[in-house]
Amino acid sequence: MPIKNGEQFLRSINRLKPSVIYKGEYVTGNLSEHFAFSGLLSMQASLYDMQGEENYMDKMTYLSPHSSEPVGLSFIFPKTKNDLRRRRTMTSLWASRHHGFLGRAPDYMNIALAAYASAADVLQPFNPEFADNLKNYYVYCREHDISLSHAFVQPAGTRLSAVTDSFEDSIAAKVHEFNSDGMIVSGAFLLATRAVTSEEILIYPPPVLTLEEENPFTFAFAIPIDSPGLTLVCRESYVQGDSAYDFPLSSQFEEMDTLVLCDHVKVPRDRIFLYGSAQAANELAYESQFHAQVSHQTISRYIAKTEFFLGTAENLARLADADSDILNQHISDIIVILEILKSLLLKAEVKAKKNRWGVIVPDKGATLVANTYFPKIYPRMVEIIQHLASSRLVMIPSEKDFESEVSLDLKKYLQISDTEAHKVIALNRLAWELSASSFAGRQVQYERFFFGNPQHVTNRLYQGFIGREKLIKNVTRFLNL
Amino acid sequence: MPIKNGEQFLRSINRLKPSVIYKGEYVTGNLSEHFAFSGLLSMQASLYDMQGEENYMDKMTYLSPHSSEPVGLSFIFPKTKNDLRRRRTMTSLWASRHHGFLGRAPDYMNIALAAYASAADVLQPFNPEFADNLKNYYVYCREHDISLSHAFVQPAGTRLSAVTDSFEDSIAAKVHEFNSDGMIVSGAFLLATRAVTSEEILIYPPPVLTLEEENPFTFAFAIPIDSPGLTLVCRESYVQGDSAYDFPLSSQFEEMDTLVLCDHVKVPRDRIFLYGSAQAANELAYESQFHAQVSHQTISRYIAKTEFFLGTAENLARLADADSDILNQHISDIIVILEILKSLLLKAEVKAKKNRWGVIVPDKGATLVANTYFPKIYPRMVEIIQHLASSRLVMIPSEKDFESEVSLDLKKYLQISDTEAHKVIALNRLAWELSASSFAGRQVQYERFFFGNPQHVTNRLYQGFIGREKLIKNVTRFLNL
Amino acid sequence: MPIKNGEQFLRSINRLKPSVIYKGEYVTGNLSEHFAFSGLLSMQASLYDMQGEENYMDKMTYLSPHSSEPVGLSFIFPKTKNDLRRRRTMTSLWASRHHGFLGRAPDYMNIALAAYASAADVLQPFNPEFADNLKNYYVYCREHDISLSHAFVQPAGTRLSAVTDSFEDSIAAKVHEFNSDGMIVSGAFLLATRAVTSEEILIYPPPVLTLEEENPFTFAFAIPIDSPGLTLVCRESYVQGDSAYDFPLSSQFEEMDTLVLCDHVKVPRDRIFLYGSAQAANELAYESQFHAQVSHQTISRYIAKTEFFLGTAENLARLADADSDILNQHISDIIVILEILKSLLLKAEVKAKKNRWGVIVPDKGATLVANTYFPKIYPRMVEIIQHLASSRLVMIPSEKDFESEVSLDLKKYLQISDTEAHKVIALNRLAWELSASSFAGRQVQYERFFFGNPQHVTNRLYQGFIGREKLIKNVTRFLNL
Amino acid sequence: MPIKNGEQFLRSINRLKPSVIYKGEYVTGNLSEHFAFSGLLSMQASLYDMQGEENYMDKMTYLSPHSSEPVGLSFIFPKTKNDLRRRRTMTSLWASRHHGFLGRAPDYMNIALAAYASAADVLQPFNPEFADNLKNYYVYCREHDISLSHAFVQPAGTRLSAVTDSFEDSIAAKVHEFNSDGMIVSGAFLLATRAVTSEEILIYPPPVLTLEEENPFTFAFAIPIDSPGLTLVCRESYVQGDSAYDFPLSSQFEEMDTLVLCDHVKVPRDRIFLYGSAQAANELAYESQFHAQVSHQTISRYIAKTEFFLGTAENLARLADADSDILNQHISDIIVILEILKSLLLKAEVKAKKNRWGVIVPDKGATLVANTYFPKIYPRMVEIIQHLASSRLVMIPSEKDFESEVSLDLKKYLQISDTEAHKVIALNRLAWELSASSFAGRQVQYERFFFGNPQHVTNRLYQGFIGREKLIKNVTRFLNL
Repeated sequence: MPIKNGEQFLRSINRLKPSVIYKGEYVTGNLSEHFAFSGLLSMQASLYDMQGEENYMDKMTYLSPHSSEPVGLSFIFPKTKNDLRRRRTMTSLWASRHHGFLGRAPDYMNIALAAYASAADVLQPFNPEFADNLKNYYVYCREHDISLSHAFVQPAGTRLSAVTDSFEDSIAAKVHEFNSDGMIVSGAFLLATRAVTSEEILIYPPPVLTLEEENPFTFAFAIPIDSPGLTLVCRESYVQGDSAYDFPLSSQFEEMDTLVLCDHVKVPRDRIFLYGSAQAANELAYESQFHAQVSHQTISRYIAKTEFFLGTAENLARLADADSDILNQHISDIIVILEILKSLLLKAEVKAKKNRWGVIVPDKGATLVANTYFPKIYPRMVEIIQHLASSRLVMIPSEKDFESEVSLDLKKYLQISDTEAHKVIALNRLAWELSASSFAGRQVQYERFFFGNPQHVTNRLYQGFIGREKLIKNVTRFLNL
Repeated sequence: MPIKNGEQFLRSINRLKPSVIYKGEYVTGNLSEHFAFSGLLSMQASLYDMQGEENYMDKMTYLSPHSSEPVGLSFIFPKTKNDLRRRRTMTSLWASRHHGFLGRAPDYMNIALAAYASAADVLQPFNPEFADNLKNYYVYCREHDISLSHAFVQPAGTRLSAVTDSFEDSIAAKVHEFNSDGMIVSGAFLLATRAVTSEEILIYPPPVLTLEEENPFTFAFAIPIDSPGLTLVCRESYVQGDSAYDFPLSSQFEEMDTLVLCDHVKVPRDRIFLYGSAQAANELAYESQFHAQVSHQTISRYIAKTEFFLGTAENLARLADADSDILNQHISDIIVILEILKSLLLKAEVKAKKNRWGVIVPDKGATLVANTYFPKIYPRMVEIIQHLASSRLVMIPSEKDFESEVSLDLKKYLQISDTEAHKVIALNRLAWELSASSFAGRQVQYERFFFGNPQHVTNRLYQGFIGREKLIKNVTRFLNL
Repeated sequence: MPIKNGEQFLRSINRLKPSVIYKGEYVTGNLSEHFAFSGLLSMQASLYDMQGEENYMDKMTYLSPHSSEPVGLSFIFPKTKNDLRRRRTMTSLWASRHHGFLGRAPDYMNIALAAYASAADVLQPFNPEFADNLKNYYVYCREHDISLSHAFVQPAGTRLSAVTDSFEDSIAAKVHEFNSDGMIVSGAFLLATRAVTSEEILIYPPPVLTLEEENPFTFAFAIPIDSPGLTLVCRESYVQGDSAYDFPLSSQFEEMDTLVLCDHVKVPRDRIFLYGSAQAANELAYESQFHAQVSHQTISRYIAKTEFFLGTAENLARLADADSDILNQHISDIIVILEILKSLLLKAEVKAKKNRWGVIVPDKGATLVANTYFPKIYPRMVEIIQHLASSRLVMIPSEKDFESEVSLDLKKYLQISDTEAHKVIALNRLAWELSASSFAGRQVQYERFFFGNPQHVTNRLYQGFIGREKLIKNVTRFLNL
Repeated sequence: MPIKNGEQFLRSINRLKPSVIYKGEYVTGNLSEHFAFSGLLSMQASLYDMQGEENYMDKMTYLSPHSSEPVGLSFIFPKTKNDLRRRRTMTSLWASRHHGFLGRAPDYMNIALAAYASAADVLQPFNPEFADNLKNYYVYCREHDISLSHAFVQPAGTRLSAVTDSFEDSIAAKVHEFNSDGMIVSGAFLLATRAVTSEEILIYPPPVLTLEEENPFTFAFAIPIDSPGLTLVCRESYVQGDSAYDFPLSSQFEEMDTLVLCDHVKVPRDRIFLYGSAQAANELAYESQFHAQVSHQTISRYIAKTEFFLGTAENLARLADADSDILNQHISDIIVILEILKSLLLKAEVKAKKNRWGVIVPDKGATLVANTYFPKIYPRMVEIIQHLASSRLVMIPSEKDFESEVSLDLKKYLQISDTEAHKVIALNRLAWELSASSFAGRQVQYERFFFGNPQHVTNRLYQGFIGREKLIKNVTRFLNL
């Protein structure tokens, strides 16, 4: 059974019973009925349904080299620029459904996993078994259309404990035992977004350098989300209610973020991708060109989101009583952002290059710049929505109010020219969720730190810039120096 | 009974039964027990208590010229610069309690009412009765320490209806009847902040110009908040729970904003301050120097809020693992803001001038600039908190999680150096509420539009600038033109 | 004789004796020996030389359909995307020579003229003679490699005079007479950049709407730069000396800007492209897609300039003693700009479309955004250079100082680590000219207003945005409105 | 002879024959006749004249405690807040004459010297002679109204040479010999602004830490500007001509910046203020509260400059044909800056405190913030002028053009509505010099680095902030931590 549909996905999710803590208590019952997850699960289900729909299937799947059945295009090892374009068509279609609000729609990790698997042979010199595990796991996920989440980061200060404390006392994530059955892992990992509604999780922290020959603080693996010893601690949900009128965004797109706790989690032998060698861990990260590959999906997502902001801004501008020239200057800022993102995406594809594994990699310059540019400019879009929605944002009635005794008054007083109150308020509520709600705040912060601390992202861009020496000499030659 | 204490205030609030709609339903029962209002009411009660406390009473009250009993200093007609300083001491003390988060702490309207009352005689030529009503109402509020709210603005487009539609059909706020008993008013008014937890409300929309000699669209009055025909429609509450650990700000400072609906509200004769004359309405607004007087309170509030941001930023910086030099550059931006606000406040007082009513008015230049500067710079402070809190903002456990089965893990993994997890998370939760939550979003938007559309506020500053011609000539003379 | 070389160009320029006023006096003698023009003329000559050099000729010329001899690629009517790429290769090569500092290198107007000529048939219904004139003039310029300048704008307020004053008194540019010999024109035109060192000038003001059937305020023509009645009034030159060490930029790239005065200038019949019809003038402007075509050259120029800033910034950073992390954050901003421009250029070409005249037009979205983006971001690059050069910019010795008695002291004290004083100062002088000199100031202002008032440029972008309705509906559909 | 007049000043300057290198050659002849210095000297002379004029003398001088004759108020040891206000009146009057463009009007160093002298006794424990020298020198300068310049900074890298190289080879500024006659000094110092047109120079580099007990790299002294061995190397002058019409700013306010070379300069014993002790050097700097004192003058200067920008902006706005609402938003930004600076100045005085030497010191918070705020906001004012002047900045005729054959045409075409061309162009030329010329560029950079690298200035602010712990606890107490 290759690509899933929504129903299959929901069935799988409800069958799994991960250990999830929400406000101090274990979540019981079907996740699809829990207020914090039901909207998100419906949205994810609709994504899975989409890929099987007649008018989308061709654009969203390809035939598995393994089973000859249709599998998701986000799993493809792109070998040509056309493959890249097909993959982008697929990610764009999903992004147009979730309007870019899902930072962790399943295609994100599908692409990441394909990137790792394509470079799996870099692990051969370290441990051929790991290379095979990775390749096999990729095939497994692709053929079962697994919804995968991940955790890469450890809480501040814990990694340091690998070098300052005894192995016993260390709170850095670590492997207690590594043997023929597998390995036993403990540790904490941050920001596993959408983990609760995933089927599996990949854990792959950046390696810690130690003196041991077999470094117990370096590893990577993937396991089912309901593996014993694995606990997901949720932040509070930003779902404010299930009225799609009142909460058009959070009722559908609220990805939960979690802290992952591993307490002597047992990882089967065939699910281990890395163990003991920081060098292997670094080489896999570097050689897979993970960043450039997933950024290809990310830019599609940025574009869908920017288009949603632009459409909202235009709708709001039609309600505003301010000078349209000033409004247009604001809105034009969004047009500039949109056009820039589209151009970066185009360059990422047109200037893509084949790597040593025979896989086409989107242009690094364009992808690194997109990852630097968007997180900085995103708050500006939020601000524009605030400006356009103006003080009307501060007091917005709810759907229920339109059914209350004052319903007629609301309709009378809150219409704006020809626009009915019901529509005015719908747009204001959207503006609120988009620009001022907890949902909005989390999106701002999430985009800002999507690829890590902005300073590090900028340094990555700076270090990765190609052509520096040429430009330096360009100037010294000009000066005859 | 002059100044109230908290208990008296709560009793009064619970006795009043205003018509309040929350999510489509009328609120019943004691407001002080309603989740959306209980925290705010406790906070307000603590403000009232404060003014009677031994070490504050001298600084927060003065002896009523009427009753010789202590009344709140925010009611004073300042006659000397020292009066201004005393009033500021009072407003600063309240602001230091609510840390600037209450845009509508009662002192705001106390000062506004005093400003209007001080210039009441401007109404004599129009109707001496109105002048008396205003003065008497001011005394009533002062002597009973009334908690007053207000509504000035009408929904977009409704005012226009005064000129485009027949009186019958017009949806502009209007007086149906004006007779010896009083007047009957209908209309909608926006953004009555904290109205639900107030005792009275002042309604004073900007006048609409019409051709009638007795303009039925121009009026002002104050009535008890539970007057028949008056309905308050709430937005959803941003109180997320009553744990002060989880929600340190919204659990205490969530002022509710409301839409005020008047349906044939009967205003007694002695509560009418304006009727029928747009000129009278404009003169009262202008002569009372309302903006400059309330801004005196507002700047104190800005300062308290900025200090709270600065303290939070410093606490967060101690947890951050980033380069302290870059953090300090961020934090220094808040120091600059704080120092500028303090200087503007000082100038407002030192350069204050007596007006024709014998009342001292804070310097207009300093107050207009504060009102232009702070709304624009406030989002920058929010952004600094986001930067300092970094990606840790995205996943924050709650109080209950610390009491759950994973409590020990949380304590182990989330501590940072010497700072216990419990404190780390408390600071992160504060940062969240301050910079990314719905509460934060509403604060940003509220500050931005506090004195109206930013463009209008800037125009007010531009038009009010004194010394323009001198500076223009300064330059033409320099050029010998 | 198709493409010129530098010597031919200089000979042509020196033979022409345009009427040029510099600081109140007519310029006499060879322009190539005048301090204000000699550097610029050398630079232009080197551009002309370049296109005939062995390793460039193929990339910079194509065979004239007329003469089968090589003519400049900037004259091409692009029929395929490959033509666009060839044209861009040509403009990039010139831009790499003048590093983007020449806003009016000859290829700019070559492309503009080709755009107009390609759409000349739009004039057929108005006057077939004009259509022929335009096509013939284009061929003439291409086959003689004419260096063309232009003037489009009239001084503020003069155009209005076309409607407010009598024809006699009007100071709007106007045609006194139109007959079988040609026409007689008077008026003033602004900002003819590089006109003094051009061979011909195209004058094409935006039409003024009047009631006359034969509108005397609407016309376009091209004439030799030394035509009687034509006077060029110069601003002061920013050439500060001819030492390329001291003034690496202004000694080569100082384009002169002029005010063009026409006093009864006689325009021969075959040089008239428009007369009497505002509609014809507007259609030619619109149908030629002038903006999109010249922007293709402009983006190449932006890229060359940005690369020069980046190279300079990197050189300066190596001298700076500040924290390299902060410097890299600054420099990364330039990397982002560069990558964005390159992506926009790529999109302009890849998404180019054929118009009704069979000519390929660069993508409008990408070109409009480039024209909006660069003028706003350019000052940021200037600021970065100021930051990197720091206070060292304020005191920089000159070449002569290195030959003076204190030469040894300068060498001793002004070296930085391994970098000799001579190089340190060369870089500082470059930084000065690039970021703080009159030359720099004029560049900032020139870029800012290159395509007109920034607000108008933004409005052009806003109005030209394609897909607005789709995005608006995208959102209303999402909201089920 | 206490306060000088202009004539006395010019005589003194012309009598001195400092060793000045301009473009590689020694300057000979009277400085007051040299194109690079004549305008500046006239301006300085007019400042000296001013203090003796009848209507200014009272406001600009006080009676010397030494001679009972009037001496400049900038020399005063302020003992009361009223002294501060008097001093500020004096500095404001001078600033209103030079409109803030002279960064080094003589009052700047007068105040600095008074600050040092007031704390001279801090040197007693190190060497009582130095304390006396400093006090005597201060009296000398005050009683002779000496125009003093200074140099504090050494070129990048030279200081390091004090520790890395042998004393012989070291290029750090150093004392070769110290004996009963005085000391012999060599070294290079940067950025002695206005040194050429001063009478004396104070050299006081920050101390270098070495192991020697008698540190030969630490010293301070003042000597006549024409002392043997002292050479001033100029940057190129930004005086573009002597037409006040064409160059309204540079013709009067172009302060020259110089590199100071000392080659075995002999410093007499009584002119030595520091030698051998880094601790003494640091204590004098710290105890004199130099920064706070000179900032008092600097804020006055900022205000005069901001007023000049505001007046210019208003004049330009009247010529502009753009939407006045947008222009007013721009101009309002300058109003905000002006009001903030005035408030900071007020706070600096009102909150001034007496130090241990009995001298009143302006409030450190306000002065540090002014020094952080203005350099960052100044470029924004420059940008506003560019926006208001628009593309008209790019082509501006000169005074001579108005006397040329095309004079009538210029008058006809360049007028704007009722404003004569002559005035339009005068304003545009001012706008050019203020916002885009070399003069403008140097002002931007000079303000930016006036008190050092912006990052260091911000760090000084951060470190100097008082009340940090209170605000931190404010928040932790609020959180019950």
